[in-house]
Amino acid sequence: MTKSYVIKPELGKEYPVISHGKGIYLYDKEGNRYIDGSSGAVTASIGHGVEEVAEAMYAQAKEVSFVYRSHFSSDAVEQLATKLAEWAPGSLNWTFFVSSGSEATETAQKIAIQYWQEKGRPTKNRIISRWMSYHGITMGALSMSGHVLRRKRFTPLLADYPAITGPYPYRKPEGMSLESYALACADELETAILRVGPEQVAAFIAEPVIGASGGAVVPPEGYFQRIREICDKYEVLFIADEVMTGVGRTGKAFGIDHWGVVPDLMALGKGMSAGYTPMAATIVSDEIIETITKGSGSIMAGHTYSANPQSAAVSLAVLNYVEKHQLVEKAAEQGAYLLARLKELADELPLIGDARGLGMLCALELVKNKQTKEPFALSQGVGGKVIEKAFEKGLLIYPAMGGIDGVAGDAVIISPPLTITTEQIDELISLLKEAVIAVQQELQDKALIG
Amino acid sequence: MTKSYVIKPELGKEYPVISHGKGIYLYDKEGNRYIDGSSGAVTASIGHGVEEVAEAMYAQAKEVSFVYRSHFSSDAVEQLATKLAEWAPGSLNWTFFVSSGSEATETAQKIAIQYWQEKGRPTKNRIISRWMSYHGITMGALSMSGHVLRRKRFTPLLADYPAITGPYPYRKPEGMSLESYALACADELETAILRVGPEQVAAFIAEPVIGASGGAVVPPEGYFQRIREICDKYEVLFIADEVMTGVGRTGKAFGIDHWGVVPDLMALGKGMSAGYTPMAATIVSDEIIETITKGSGSIMAGHTYSANPQSAAVSLAVLNYVEKHQLVEKAAEQGAYLLARLKELADELPLIGDARGLGMLCALELVKNKQTKEPFALSQGVGGKVIEKAFEKGLLIYPAMGGIDGVAGDAVIISPPLTITTEQIDELISLLKEAVIAVQQELQDKALIG
Repeated sequence: MTKSYVIKPELGKEYPVISHGKGIYLYDKEGNRYIDGSSGAVTASIGHGVEEVAEAMYAQAKEVSFVYRSHFSSDAVEQLATKLAEWAPGSLNWTFFVSSGSEATETAQKIAIQYWQEKGRPTKNRIISRWMSYHGITMGALSMSGHVLRRKRFTPLLADYPAITGPYPYRKPEGMSLESYALACADELETAILRVGPEQVAAFIAEPVIGASGGAVVPPEGYFQRIREICDKYEVLFIADEVMTGVGRTGKAFGIDHWGVVPDLMALGKGMSAGYTPMAATIVSDEIIETITKGSGSIMAGHTYSANPQSAAVSLAVLNYVEKHQLVEKAAEQGAYLLARLKELADELPLIGDARGLGMLCALELVKNKQTKEPFALSQGVGGKVIEKAFEKGLLIYPAMGGIDGVAGDAVIISPPLTITTEQIDELISLLKEAVIAVQQELQDKALIG
Repeated sequence: MTKSYVIKPELGKEYPVISHGKGIYLYDKEGNRYIDGSSGAVTASIGHGVEEVAEAMYAQAKEVSFVYRSHFSSDAVEQLATKLAEWAPGSLNWTFFVSSGSEATETAQKIAIQYWQEKGRPTKNRIISRWMSYHGITMGALSMSGHVLRRKRFTPLLADYPAITGPYPYRKPEGMSLESYALACADELETAILRVGPEQVAAFIAEPVIGASGGAVVPPEGYFQRIREICDKYEVLFIADEVMTGVGRTGKAFGIDHWGVVPDLMALGKGMSAGYTPMAATIVSDEIIETITKGSGSIMAGHTYSANPQSAAVSLAVLNYVEKHQLVEKAAEQGAYLLARLKELADELPLIGDARGLGMLCALELVKNKQTKEPFALSQGVGGKVIEKAFEKGLLIYPAMGGIDGVAGDAVIISPPLTITTEQIDELISLLKEAVIAVQQELQDKALIG
């Protein structure tokens, strides 16, 4: 192997080199096959090597790939925005295009702050968020994120946003009903708004299902409905971070649709272009756009690649593919099967404390003691071991470490392409089970678990 | 026209819809032709509709578009990093891939801070920058940016980085030699480091030629050499923001190469993929990578699309095209011709105070009084008028407003694709001249200029 100058996640480590992909399978240059059990980073929702998308990409590139949004619009960008307006709930009709989830949450943050400025209430410029959350790695996105492992090197530079905890049904207080727990967690937002002061708070941001910071943690029924009420009561905008959950991943168009709640802004990414091009978006309500149109007339945000026709054409082809193959519905059906199979594993294997998820966004939480739910210390790297073992066996899964308090908690995310079949889920489960058993054995040998 | 749901720069305004592009020309759907005199947002460096790039894009898409960097590397990404190591000066050999210039400057910021943590000096976590600067719109990038118009809505949320002014030869103090001015401006950095305290400062960031915040402002000889000395003296890393200037735009591989200075980190974007895909990068020195490899072994940064094979294949095709057609050399030659023609305009027309630039990154500064160099108030929108008039005549140029102090100063950037021919430059100049004369006439009619 020639010397690599790519900065990789583990410096000095060699990574297999990809050859090609088809559907849920990836093949490296040495001929090894992998099931993409996490859609990469919960991204490749329609699977790999989809010919229609490659064709749409090529067709756009032959016409024009790039124009700047201050100069031109394009058919691709107009059609994509119109389709997103159809998909999105309520009056979430307007799209600001960007190229990454971090840019999408930061754009939502900026628009929320500007909205209140246009309303003559410039002190409303803080964003409340939850400690179990991840909204991106740029400084503004990281400020809103509670993902301690990713925050801690930069804490002195971050506006310290997270203020509340967020529901974690697996670890709710003993004896409390789910219904009361949902409301108690939501009411934390009211307390936080009152402490900070409603006139300081522009918006609240949350992932409908918590991704990298907890591992497919699904809130109880009633939580987001109460959140919406609180936001309305104190005139706080609600931003749904749908970067991981959006575009069908959870078995509805958007994660928040499970609770019939309409946010004021949504951030999209990942599944929006399913890995075929960097693409993301902030979707904004009529009310916000009308207010800013009547005010300054211009939103202070935007990147070089915002609304470029090349990425828009690719994303449009991805959404067309999702519609044509009814992948939102498939994610619901096959996701239910996937979760049922994961719950079987959890019943069977002592290392698995919890199997959870919604649609095709699922996770296993790994625990030291199934009865007490005692987590492993982060330093034991148990989640990492399961991921590594699965990788050796030809299965890709995705980490969600340190979810409990930043220093403990191991979960692994299972989030295959929405196109996965029942047989392929069985194949995935079989490899996953082998991986968990191998790590479980290793931990038992070292007397780290009972 | 059907209703548009795309959030555009001016809300409510209709923008022409692009049809296709070839070379320096773009065509809208109504059949109008435009010269892309700014490469969009100083991005489309190799021109539009380049067949080789479309082919490379399609070929990669047929194999695999997306894998996550924690799982696999790819030939495209390895080859691209190796090529960048060849292009970049000194020991700037290592590439961290991202998808936008904002992500690239933020990644540089994070790596600089982490570097000092790994060296056991965690208090070195502030970045000094210049008021005349623009490093991106995400909060971390905006914190480092002096672009007042883009900062001001978010000032309460920004760590207040800019500390020094940066050289502005057109407006240097009367009677001072360029040599003394260069050193005096650079010495501001030493003062700033001493005021903040060297043990607080991780890095200094600067654009080799100032882009959107001043309009192709070229520093005098000696400035960056002295900056490098000061950085070395106080153990402050030097980050060159080459998002606008990199990959041949200024007639050398990178802008900083004009002064033979080697930074510790470089941010790239725009010309790196010339608009064919969102792509950007942070290039890092051997010393930094070796330190972190020996330490924690992992850089705390990274986005979903970091090092995706699809974008890498496109960027690689763009760099191959630049090499094959010797566009770096062409940018130097044709850029000299472009600047000479712009200086003729400046001699002839009272509205133009200064014509400046380096390679194919040039600008005109518009002034109220050529003798006193008195600028227009931003509210008069003179730069905007010239851009609008040029657009009507079929010429795209790019704004650089408020450069002087955030509330005054009008410049327009002229930065066509590096492939532009002498005849095409003449065509561009002729349209530009018409546009400036039209605005000049309008201002004279209103007695706003003499």
